[in-house]
Amino acid sequence: MNEKQLVGEKAVEYVRDGMIVGLGTGSTAYYAIQKLGQLVQAGLSIKGVPTSVQTENLAKELKIPLTTFTEVDYLDIAIDGADEVDQQQNLIKGGGGALLREKIIARAAKQFIVIADSSKMVNTLGTFPLPVEVTQFGHKVTKSHIEALGGKATLRQMDGEIFISDNGNYIYDVKFENIMDAKELEQALNLIPGVVENGLFVHMADKVITVDKNKQIVIR
Amino acid sequence: MNEKQLVGEKAVEYVRDGMIVGLGTGSTAYYAIQKLGQLVQAGLSIKGVPTSVQTENLAKELKIPLTTFTEVDYLDIAIDGADEVDQQQNLIKGGGGALLREKIIARAAKQFIVIADSSKMVNTLGTFPLPVEVTQFGHKVTKSHIEALGGKATLRQMDGEIFISDNGNYIYDVKFENIMDAKELEQALNLIPGVVENGLFVHMADKVITVDKNKQIVIR
Repeated sequence: MNEKQLVGEKAVEYVRDGMIVGLGTGSTAYYAIQKLGQLVQAGLSIKGVPTSVQTENLAKELKIPLTTFTEVDYLDIAIDGADEVDQQQNLIKGGGGALLREKIIARAAKQFIVIADSSKMVNTLGTFPLPVEVTQFGHKVTKSHIEALGGKATLRQMDGEIFISDNGNYIYDVKFENIMDAKELEQALNLIPGVVENGLFVHMADKVITVDKNKQIVIR
Repeated sequence: MNEKQLVGEKAVEYVRDGMIVGLGTGSTAYYAIQKLGQLVQAGLSIKGVPTSVQTENLAKELKIPLTTFTEVDYLDIAIDGADEVDQQQNLIKGGGGALLREKIIARAAKQFIVIADSSKMVNTLGTFPLPVEVTQFGHKVTKSHIEALGGKATLRQMDGEIFISDNGNYIYDVKFENIMDAKELEQALNLIPGVVENGLFVHMADKVITVDKNKQIVIR
């Protein structure tokens, strides 16, 4: 079993019958959702809230019942991957482009469980470029305000076109040398008009499930 | 001449030939734009960047040449109204629903001039409900996070339908008793996932043009 599958399936052990479950996006969350699908087939009763259109489609294939924020006010648990996890359990997320919905769902969950293979664990955030979601209107001037904070921003493309998020926005991937104060940077970015959200998740993870050097699961 | 026209036309005196000018939205900005239209007819050469579709249409009627952030990186000046202005020249804006574009434009302008009739001048912000623009996804849970900061939030409606901003988002009008620390509230709101922007403009106004008790123009 690869590391992503190990941590993904471990996280599902925290899901109990009757729960509303936030379903993450990406290659690690994929394994958690697959496992949930098996448990649902075996009789587990849950409702999922997907963090992306991609995850919504996967959950439908697996016949996981879904709900939305029109019907529920909070989630019992959310399970999602991360692009980087530091020693304080702060995260960079958004490599898959779903950071805004992922953050809304993580914030609405009573318990937010992060699953990450060992390659995602870092001392200091910032090797992975930080995704910053911005409104299309004025995005170039927003970019210059972002770069004034010390990063180099690149407009995300996909298949030769500008990438557009599920919310109709653009994403800049911003390379900071080292993110020394994630909380301060998160605040500064969100104060820029035109920045809708950024991929820093500070003090949000309740548990991080990863794998150590000996391929053993570690829960922090 | 009514107060709105007095302050609107006064602001236009700061516009010089060749400038890129941010064009505000609302009943006071209307008079500034009308005056600019007259000056353009008389030979003034400027380019405008409108803060809303409504203002864009007005500027086109008046034959004010327009440009966009695709072509320019900053503005020389922006002129806009406000719903409230406090003693520290902090503002509440967004009654017209254009707060996001207005804030992007104000931030991009070398000089941001606020025009406000005397009814807009207050000791403490908050009598006017604060507009907060949020993504449609998860907006009810976002509302509950906003209200946890101490306000009562009402989803804006127009003609019996939910109001949708130029950026495709919803707006909550949030009644706080008194906004004692505008900077802190602005930060706290923008840190909520799902909040795109809020109508607090803190330390952004370079000049406020208003009218005193004796109907004299005052520039602060």
